[in-house]
Amino acid sequence: MKQSTIRVGLVGSGFVAKFHSLAYNNLALVYNSTLPAVERIRLFDVTTELAAEGAAQFGWQEATDDWRNITRADDIDLVDIVAPNYAHAEIAVDAARHGKHIFCEKPLAHDVASARQMVEAVFQTGCTHQVGFVYRMWPAVAFAKELIDTGKIGRIIHFHSRFLHDYGLDPSLPMSWRFESQKAGAGSIGDIGSHAIDIGRYLVGDIVRVFAQSRTFVKKRLIAPPGLSNAFRRGDSEIEQLSEYGTVDVDDATDMLVEFEDGTMGNFETNWAAAGHENELSFEVSGERGAIKFSWRHANELLVHSADDPENLNGFRTVIIGPMHPNAESFGPVPGLGMGYTDAFYIAMRQMVESISRGKAASPNFIDGLKACEVVDAAVRSSDSGKWEEVNHNPPL
Amino acid sequence: MKQSTIRVGLVGSGFVAKFHSLAYNNLALVYNSTLPAVERIRLFDVTTELAAEGAAQFGWQEATDDWRNITRADDIDLVDIVAPNYAHAEIAVDAARHGKHIFCEKPLAHDVASARQMVEAVFQTGCTHQVGFVYRMWPAVAFAKELIDTGKIGRIIHFHSRFLHDYGLDPSLPMSWRFESQKAGAGSIGDIGSHAIDIGRYLVGDIVRVFAQSRTFVKKRLIAPPGLSNAFRRGDSEIEQLSEYGTVDVDDATDMLVEFEDGTMGNFETNWAAAGHENELSFEVSGERGAIKFSWRHANELLVHSADDPENLNGFRTVIIGPMHPNAESFGPVPGLGMGYTDAFYIAMRQMVESISRGKAASPNFIDGLKACEVVDAAVRSSDSGKWEEVNHNPPL
Amino acid sequence: MKQSTIRVGLVGSGFVAKFHSLAYNNLALVYNSTLPAVERIRLFDVTTELAAEGAAQFGWQEATDDWRNITRADDIDLVDIVAPNYAHAEIAVDAARHGKHIFCEKPLAHDVASARQMVEAVFQTGCTHQVGFVYRMWPAVAFAKELIDTGKIGRIIHFHSRFLHDYGLDPSLPMSWRFESQKAGAGSIGDIGSHAIDIGRYLVGDIVRVFAQSRTFVKKRLIAPPGLSNAFRRGDSEIEQLSEYGTVDVDDATDMLVEFEDGTMGNFETNWAAAGHENELSFEVSGERGAIKFSWRHANELLVHSADDPENLNGFRTVIIGPMHPNAESFGPVPGLGMGYTDAFYIAMRQMVESISRGKAASPNFIDGLKACEVVDAAVRSSDSGKWEEVNHNPPL
Amino acid sequence: MKQSTIRVGLVGSGFVAKFHSLAYNNLALVYNSTLPAVERIRLFDVTTELAAEGAAQFGWQEATDDWRNITRADDIDLVDIVAPNYAHAEIAVDAARHGKHIFCEKPLAHDVASARQMVEAVFQTGCTHQVGFVYRMWPAVAFAKELIDTGKIGRIIHFHSRFLHDYGLDPSLPMSWRFESQKAGAGSIGDIGSHAIDIGRYLVGDIVRVFAQSRTFVKKRLIAPPGLSNAFRRGDSEIEQLSEYGTVDVDDATDMLVEFEDGTMGNFETNWAAAGHENELSFEVSGERGAIKFSWRHANELLVHSADDPENLNGFRTVIIGPMHPNAESFGPVPGLGMGYTDAFYIAMRQMVESISRGKAASPNFIDGLKACEVVDAAVRSSDSGKWEEVNHNPPL
Repeated sequence: MKQSTIRVGLVGSGFVAKFHSLAYNNLALVYNSTLPAVERIRLFDVTTELAAEGAAQFGWQEATDDWRNITRADDIDLVDIVAPNYAHAEIAVDAARHGKHIFCEKPLAHDVASARQMVEAVFQTGCTHQVGFVYRMWPAVAFAKELIDTGKIGRIIHFHSRFLHDYGLDPSLPMSWRFESQKAGAGSIGDIGSHAIDIGRYLVGDIVRVFAQSRTFVKKRLIAPPGLSNAFRRGDSEIEQLSEYGTVDVDDATDMLVEFEDGTMGNFETNWAAAGHENELSFEVSGERGAIKFSWRHANELLVHSADDPENLNGFRTVIIGPMHPNAESFGPVPGLGMGYTDAFYIAMRQMVESISRGKAASPNFIDGLKACEVVDAAVRSSDSGKWEEVNHNPPL
Repeated sequence: MKQSTIRVGLVGSGFVAKFHSLAYNNLALVYNSTLPAVERIRLFDVTTELAAEGAAQFGWQEATDDWRNITRADDIDLVDIVAPNYAHAEIAVDAARHGKHIFCEKPLAHDVASARQMVEAVFQTGCTHQVGFVYRMWPAVAFAKELIDTGKIGRIIHFHSRFLHDYGLDPSLPMSWRFESQKAGAGSIGDIGSHAIDIGRYLVGDIVRVFAQSRTFVKKRLIAPPGLSNAFRRGDSEIEQLSEYGTVDVDDATDMLVEFEDGTMGNFETNWAAAGHENELSFEVSGERGAIKFSWRHANELLVHSADDPENLNGFRTVIIGPMHPNAESFGPVPGLGMGYTDAFYIAMRQMVESISRGKAASPNFIDGLKACEVVDAAVRSSDSGKWEEVNHNPPL
Repeated sequence: MKQSTIRVGLVGSGFVAKFHSLAYNNLALVYNSTLPAVERIRLFDVTTELAAEGAAQFGWQEATDDWRNITRADDIDLVDIVAPNYAHAEIAVDAARHGKHIFCEKPLAHDVASARQMVEAVFQTGCTHQVGFVYRMWPAVAFAKELIDTGKIGRIIHFHSRFLHDYGLDPSLPMSWRFESQKAGAGSIGDIGSHAIDIGRYLVGDIVRVFAQSRTFVKKRLIAPPGLSNAFRRGDSEIEQLSEYGTVDVDDATDMLVEFEDGTMGNFETNWAAAGHENELSFEVSGERGAIKFSWRHANELLVHSADDPENLNGFRTVIIGPMHPNAESFGPVPGLGMGYTDAFYIAMRQMVESISRGKAASPNFIDGLKACEVVDAAVRSSDSGKWEEVNHNPPL
Repeated sequence: MKQSTIRVGLVGSGFVAKFHSLAYNNLALVYNSTLPAVERIRLFDVTTELAAEGAAQFGWQEATDDWRNITRADDIDLVDIVAPNYAHAEIAVDAARHGKHIFCEKPLAHDVASARQMVEAVFQTGCTHQVGFVYRMWPAVAFAKELIDTGKIGRIIHFHSRFLHDYGLDPSLPMSWRFESQKAGAGSIGDIGSHAIDIGRYLVGDIVRVFAQSRTFVKKRLIAPPGLSNAFRRGDSEIEQLSEYGTVDVDDATDMLVEFEDGTMGNFETNWAAAGHENELSFEVSGERGAIKFSWRHANELLVHSADDPENLNGFRTVIIGPMHPNAESFGPVPGLGMGYTDAFYIAMRQMVESISRGKAASPNFIDGLKACEVVDAAVRSSDSGKWEEVNHNPPL
């Protein structure tokens, strides 16, 4: 039976919590569909004050400083986890055991064992689960997938991706859990790289082995109180008063070669200390009959080359995304209006809610989350070992 | 005294109604501010069915097929007009006379006389009024203004703008009020051109005279029933059943030269039949010490050239918009996440609501709306006369 | 009878003289063809010293300070004029009267009367004549022409062009003949604009009327000795010693609307004081079934949009120029090697030499040169009169 | 003592021979310098007919089918080798032993042993030697070097490069020496990759270890007669008559991770079967205080980011190359005219001739050529071994 209202609890109140909240609140207006209604019931953060503040800001009915009041609450159907990486597993497993549907931000967990636990937990209960790889659902990327699946570029022979950011270049950016391997699992290759890995898997297939070289450019960072440590902005005056340093033991940058399960080769570059780049996810899929390029810098375009074109008109077309492309049909009647980061979460949340409603599996789900973790883990191992490392995808199905 | 809740009535339910509704609904979550709350009270459309459908879809409490139930209702503070151009004046004047604040979509009216009436009406009541020139508030454009005002490019010597779309190129797109001068006032120069004109005025100053050449490429269009006539999408099968033609008497394209009040020269090109272009608003402001370029195609970038750079590093910088730029501070903590068309309306509605709350004038307001109409009117006259036409800005202040 | 050697005299030794000389010298090697050989016989400049220096630098056998030693010499077949605009007519007419073939740099003359004289002269003798509108022969532009002629973009409905440079923005750039209407005829609209006008005529057709608005931003410039006055480079220390000013009476920038003979509309913008732009010629031709865009900034690409593409793959293709495109077949066996400004002159000179050899008319020829002058002249008149000015193309055929 | 004339012999007459010849012929005109004159004495190809044809086409005084008539001739000062890779060493060593200066196209040799022999030979005679890595001398690239050397981007932390072409994607392109490891040494990583490796070494430093993954997409190609086998163009009708296949045993694509001698990380991608790409060499150098990007697609631009810019004006500048940049001063008086592939050889040959004349070492020289070969060799070994392979730079100095 279709569920007519989905009651959500949000575990976390960082900046991503805002985008999730905006999406839940506008979902019905955007899609004008038979989607179930969404109620924002309860928001968690680590202190009563932070939780209350988050709930007020993002429009949640209640606040709590104990996430079990969400994972175990009778009035919650969907647990949405936007906590730090290391906290995902415990929360998700508890939620699954109490019969909740789960949306979990990426990466699924800070290590493979935790991610595997999460997958086991959701498979035991049969709930709907989704992981926050929002870029694969982005219209231009979903359209790339459609073109590949319909043979537009022929057999794929190469995959290339870079995900570059520059916030880590600033040595005055303080320590946070993102810079500790115990809590984050990995650095740029986990944080931003997991998105690129997910897109590679989505468009080409599973990755079976990995070779990586990583570097940490800023090896010590000032230890700051929680609120400050999450800041991405430079030049905060409060930073000047800090004096104790912590050790960064995750990668700032990782270059990685991979082999996909069908033998296709690929390379990835992730770097959150890349001067001049701002959230710049890009990729290119090369096939025997064409190629597809994308960059988040121009996120409303997809570049498509087809060997079917006459030789003198050979060239990448700059396709402008519009309502004729997948997942963009609800954002205006003409192409070129342009979608932004806020809109990515409408697409994600619509799919989550629709999947719950129809009792079907979401995509990307926890299996995709686990597989990305396995690739990240292999990359960390490879950078240490200096060898190819196998990716052992054996999800506990 | 600060108004703690603003009760809104929406006059119209076309595609722009959706973006307004999304903005009202999420305003508090986006800005986490001391903004007054917004209540979506009542939505109007021309039939009971259309109104009910619009209200349900966009989340308005009530529906009405008489807009006076909005303009004259005690439970409405703000009348938001998204009706066809020719209907703006009557509704706005009525709203003003009944003490409402007014947000009106662009162009302010289909003719100067109507626009003038609207200005007179709002000035008599002292209400807050705003016109939907959302592009001038867009972060990259607002940042351009900031750079100009702080002298970054020196004295302005030239302004250039193009606003290109291709929906009008399709001869099977049916007639609608947009193609009738009686109802729309003008074609591309009014519909999309008014945005470009507003940006020119915002960045450079008032326009004092205009020379224009216009063309209508598709002179007859099939007459279609209301719902169909608003469609922008091509290839609708219902169109094939139509047989009666109406005459298009507005411009599909207009090229225009202008002189600004300080003597600066400028040119504009508007064309809604420009093959390959999708909502492509672009402009360039040239100064004695630098230049600024923008294109909606890459709306999250601003290109800035400064003559202060060393000769061998001379070049436009591609600035990626982020939270350090005006009106973008609430859309994520790092640059490059990217904003879209939906976000433009948060910025507009925040300003409207804030202006009401503080009892101050909004910007762009009805004066800006009137002045844009006066320029459009001069363009239409000039294309007919083949002469420079003066723009007589004498707003009834 | 085919001419086996063409003996050239060059009138002038400015920077363009270098590019002509490079082309003559390498012509046989580039084209490996049955082209006649070219001999660089004699070079003129206004003093013996300058002429000797030019001849030595650019590899001419002899030098002269009397151009009649070229126009009237028995050992000269082709007179190549790279002198200032105002000197073209006297030299060309004399050359024609003495039975020479003539290549003349653009604009053909500084005024229409002179250009007309030149056309009359060459028509009386039946010599081969060409004007230096090298951009229309550029592979990407010639390919645009080919696409238009084969109907790829359907009936043309709009033409747009900008030619921007920034050398004139520098107020310390000294006076030269380029800034005097008596000698140059016009400013940016003649100097760089004539190229854009020629491309408009080439791709769309003759221009029948013109409306223009011009501005002179730098109204006084320091008078400098000949050598210095031709410099484009900024910051020359010798400039600091100058003190006498001359009056600039030509346009730094001109915006122009035009009507082509078939009624098609068009606009042009020329500005040699456009901050941040360097020799940036761009244009767009819009048709009923597609569009073509070009910019000299990326001169080895042509952007082509076709309405024949499926709706979801709609977009400009970035065609990379290669040996399959017109006039590029001799510059390497694969696309993407890239051609530059020096190569433009091979194409021009090959056509001149081939035309002489085959006894056929060159293109663009003096008629094209005259017609461009007539458009420039109409633009100057229009900017003064503030009215549409007719272009009276009645070449003395 | 300065050499007043340099007499050149050219070994080979393929398409690169043309560009070398164009450069020699115009060198004096381009540089107007005290460069020694260059005489094109003698050209070699494998048959009398091919040699005669090449000499005639490219303007060489004599032809020979024995390259020893060049390497051992008294009337030759400079031996310029444009033969297939496998033939370089024997010719160069012979030339060195007979006291000639040597310009050799890249890669220096098809294997490291041969390259080492060549280095030994030139070091024994003390001649001037240069290798054809023309891209490092290209103005935008040379300017990148200048910026790096003056500290503009701070300490380098990452290097990235791709060199993509698509000619190898066509399965009907016939076999040639380029597809045989015995003759070419390597495939894309040697042919185009050696350019990218040279740029990496030039800008960052020596490469000390390499990890590579390679693929051959087209494993069999039709065997064709010599003339045909060098063709890059598709669809040749003669190809249809071929029936015997040869085995391709070199890489079509290689992805490579490297470590530079100072520990800096880097990645390279080379692929001559990359759909949609045409001679697209690109790279990015990331530093602690900025970054530099280049693409041959827009070869007259360099993108430069500096962390010294204010936060809100942060962005890559698109610097347009002009006479103020290294190696571009002789190609016109203003920026933006644009240089092309032909011009690259003027720069290379000028340096060769100047180095001979001054008796100094050229750059890039045979040591650079050897080092690139060593990196290519390590890449081939690594792709086979699946391990990091050391690059043992121990040139026989």
